[in-house]
Amino acid sequence: MSTPVLLERLRQIVGANHVLTEGDLIAWEQDWRRRVRGKALAVVRPGSTQEVADVVRTCAQERVAIVPQGGNTGLSVGSTPDESGSQVVLSLTRMNTVRHVDHDNLTMTVDAGCILQSLQDTADREGFLFPLSLAAEGSCTIGGNLGTNAGGTQVVRYGNTRELCLGLEVVTAQGEIWDGLKGLRKDNTGYDLRDLFIGSEGTLGVITGATMKLYPRPAAQLTAWAAVPSMQAAVRLLGMAHRQLGAGLTGFEVMGQFALSFVTRHMPQLRIPFAEMEGASYCVLLENSDSESEQHARERFESLLELALEDGCVLDAVVAESIAQANELWHVRESIPLAQAEEGPNIKHDISVAASRIPDFVAYADALLQRELPGVRIVNFGHLGDGNLHYNVQAPSEGDPKAFMREHEDRVNHLVYEAVARFGGSFSAEHGVGALKVDKLQKYQSPVALSMMQAIKSALDPLGIMNPGRVLPAARN
Amino acid sequence: MSTPVLLERLRQIVGANHVLTEGDLIAWEQDWRRRVRGKALAVVRPGSTQEVADVVRTCAQERVAIVPQGGNTGLSVGSTPDESGSQVVLSLTRMNTVRHVDHDNLTMTVDAGCILQSLQDTADREGFLFPLSLAAEGSCTIGGNLGTNAGGTQVVRYGNTRELCLGLEVVTAQGEIWDGLKGLRKDNTGYDLRDLFIGSEGTLGVITGATMKLYPRPAAQLTAWAAVPSMQAAVRLLGMAHRQLGAGLTGFEVMGQFALSFVTRHMPQLRIPFAEMEGASYCVLLENSDSESEQHARERFESLLELALEDGCVLDAVVAESIAQANELWHVRESIPLAQAEEGPNIKHDISVAASRIPDFVAYADALLQRELPGVRIVNFGHLGDGNLHYNVQAPSEGDPKAFMREHEDRVNHLVYEAVARFGGSFSAEHGVGALKVDKLQKYQSPVALSMMQAIKSALDPLGIMNPGRVLPAARN
Repeated sequence: MSTPVLLERLRQIVGANHVLTEGDLIAWEQDWRRRVRGKALAVVRPGSTQEVADVVRTCAQERVAIVPQGGNTGLSVGSTPDESGSQVVLSLTRMNTVRHVDHDNLTMTVDAGCILQSLQDTADREGFLFPLSLAAEGSCTIGGNLGTNAGGTQVVRYGNTRELCLGLEVVTAQGEIWDGLKGLRKDNTGYDLRDLFIGSEGTLGVITGATMKLYPRPAAQLTAWAAVPSMQAAVRLLGMAHRQLGAGLTGFEVMGQFALSFVTRHMPQLRIPFAEMEGASYCVLLENSDSESEQHARERFESLLELALEDGCVLDAVVAESIAQANELWHVRESIPLAQAEEGPNIKHDISVAASRIPDFVAYADALLQRELPGVRIVNFGHLGDGNLHYNVQAPSEGDPKAFMREHEDRVNHLVYEAVARFGGSFSAEHGVGALKVDKLQKYQSPVALSMMQAIKSALDPLGIMNPGRVLPAARN
Repeated sequence: MSTPVLLERLRQIVGANHVLTEGDLIAWEQDWRRRVRGKALAVVRPGSTQEVADVVRTCAQERVAIVPQGGNTGLSVGSTPDESGSQVVLSLTRMNTVRHVDHDNLTMTVDAGCILQSLQDTADREGFLFPLSLAAEGSCTIGGNLGTNAGGTQVVRYGNTRELCLGLEVVTAQGEIWDGLKGLRKDNTGYDLRDLFIGSEGTLGVITGATMKLYPRPAAQLTAWAAVPSMQAAVRLLGMAHRQLGAGLTGFEVMGQFALSFVTRHMPQLRIPFAEMEGASYCVLLENSDSESEQHARERFESLLELALEDGCVLDAVVAESIAQANELWHVRESIPLAQAEEGPNIKHDISVAASRIPDFVAYADALLQRELPGVRIVNFGHLGDGNLHYNVQAPSEGDPKAFMREHEDRVNHLVYEAVARFGGSFSAEHGVGALKVDKLQKYQSPVALSMMQAIKSALDPLGIMNPGRVLPAARN
């Protein structure tokens, strides 16, 4: 089949309007952080699971590679085509229907192309909470969240996207439809295909639908902000918060004072409690969700913070008095990446280490970087409740930051990832591997695990057409 | 290699005392429910992960099949050898060390052969809760729990064994060791091998160690017992309990009055609240775990039950006044299987259906069975919070129950599983497939899913030596 014939066949499947080959395709061809611009053979936008299956089967016949794409907000270059012009971008965004909300089963079954925020809103309207929450929620799709096993700010209580999913509908690399949407909480009937597809970044098949868990909406959600003397104290506070609040603890974010100083500099309108407090090297944002009442939530929070003040792991703390105040505190936390961008180019890391080892990891990595690259500035913040730090590195304030990036980016990555490996951590906590970190996976993942992953890839996608070169190196044909 | 040479080699690896070939091997050769007695080539009891790897590599060289075994308490004949006398039972019970408890990370890393109860005790001693709890906890091992993705009574809050595991150590079918014990809560570095091995019932490799989640020990745990007019009311109560108690709801068990009447008959010393209450067709046991205090737990429970009484979904209810009373209530629930055995032979099912569809499923299946096999007695109880029913069938009270079993067991299974399939449920919620339900998996699992499972099996265990004939049919060589 020649390319024009293939395109004609794809037009027959999804409709001529939904096979894009001309005009500005940058929205599909360039990754979110604008690191890479690829070239698609076509952008195909199916409107149903059957259309996805037909597209995949057609491409498989021709051995044309498929790049599944949701909101294209990924941070690891996993959903844009390479530069060859030979890959089809399969955009799921037209499939954006909430298929069914099951009140008594606490589930909703949705198309993969639904925007995350619209699912939060749907859940809310129906009287439930859908707890997945992350910076890109206004643009990312649930299919992308599932494909990358996205994390976010509520993981300490509700888990990653994986833990929120009860079942998938998937189009296999052969173009067959697997309907795994039973919505069961217990189902031991063979191997766990669901979790294999979750986090596989479109390299094993295309997620077209999912049954997701819903939770009762909390009666109250309160936010507190605490100044702590050290990372060790922050970890200690985390343990106390688990004990005192139980499952009420739905958020636990840590921010280094240096990271907060960027917010102060570039967003002077934001008020940051304890920003320049002596001895307070970190601030912690805590969220307490309560099934009873705001008053109860406040009492529990106050009793935790009193205990922590007495213990010394907290130097001072405030509890937001209103939702507006709580939003302001969250806004400070969420402004760090933007403040960092305002400050200049920087090197981002998305790492995880067991919470118990984080203080030692940070001390070690800080010292290592200062020794090897004097003057680098470390912007450390993240989801401490999950052991997940965005341990970012900014060029020294003196000198040309772009030149520093050019010369030292690889070295900085190397130093940070070696430190992570030394402390038994992960170089990719919640962002995934994509095309960006394929070499890192080869380097830091266990060879035994890699060999099993490669065997699974070959077993489920023997032609190697599903998102080749992402997660694992492309097979040489 | 002849068999004597193979056995000698195995003796060199694990020590002569730990290769059993003579004497009474019934403890390893017969399944828990005494349905099947097999014959092992040998029972091999390694003392370390390296020994497991050496045993597997040796067996792989000779293409000798391996049957991994923990406490051998499984209910689906998954861990005993077949009758050929050619399979090696690999018993993990000597590997029973708790390797590490990490207080700040809320994890413990353990050998696969640790007895579940000993892990509960370890957690308790260290000030934590390890919530996995099921009838066989005094004998089953965590490796078996992981291999079968065991469920139990706390799933409504804490999930199945899968959800409690952060990482595995596995010996592959090639005899290599995969160390996946990082204990990270976020780690998106390639395919999810952990969840693939969990629930694979020893058919892909041998789980030798695991890092499991710990939870803060609740300040109080209270149990209530409610009489409800119908299964529909029980489901309604479940929704109210989720809303009112949030994550405090740690147990939600349903029991049909007919199931309870067996307890009354065979364990007359047990007191069963509302046993013969008119109009109360089911009883529900609820557990509320509170991070604050017993008083608070009681207030929350009372407020829930008042609401439910007003609503009408509860006819009457009691909250246990002491731990002894709570234990008594749980004891009633846990005595149902024994009471059933006292009553005579019966046909057990371990099914799940979305909670929202359970009332219709039960009405349909009850009517179907009565129509097709008049006089059968349905003993219905289970973990309603997870949509998991033990929908068991007892022979009619008239006539010879053994003859009924011989004549009708297959028919009963067929009717129940067809009803389950009709309501989108699972024929194996928490017990697994083993050798017992291989044909059921072929019949009720989606062909697309089966074909992926078979591809994965061939990819990871190409020689077909890992627990052949369990979960999937044995490959014909």
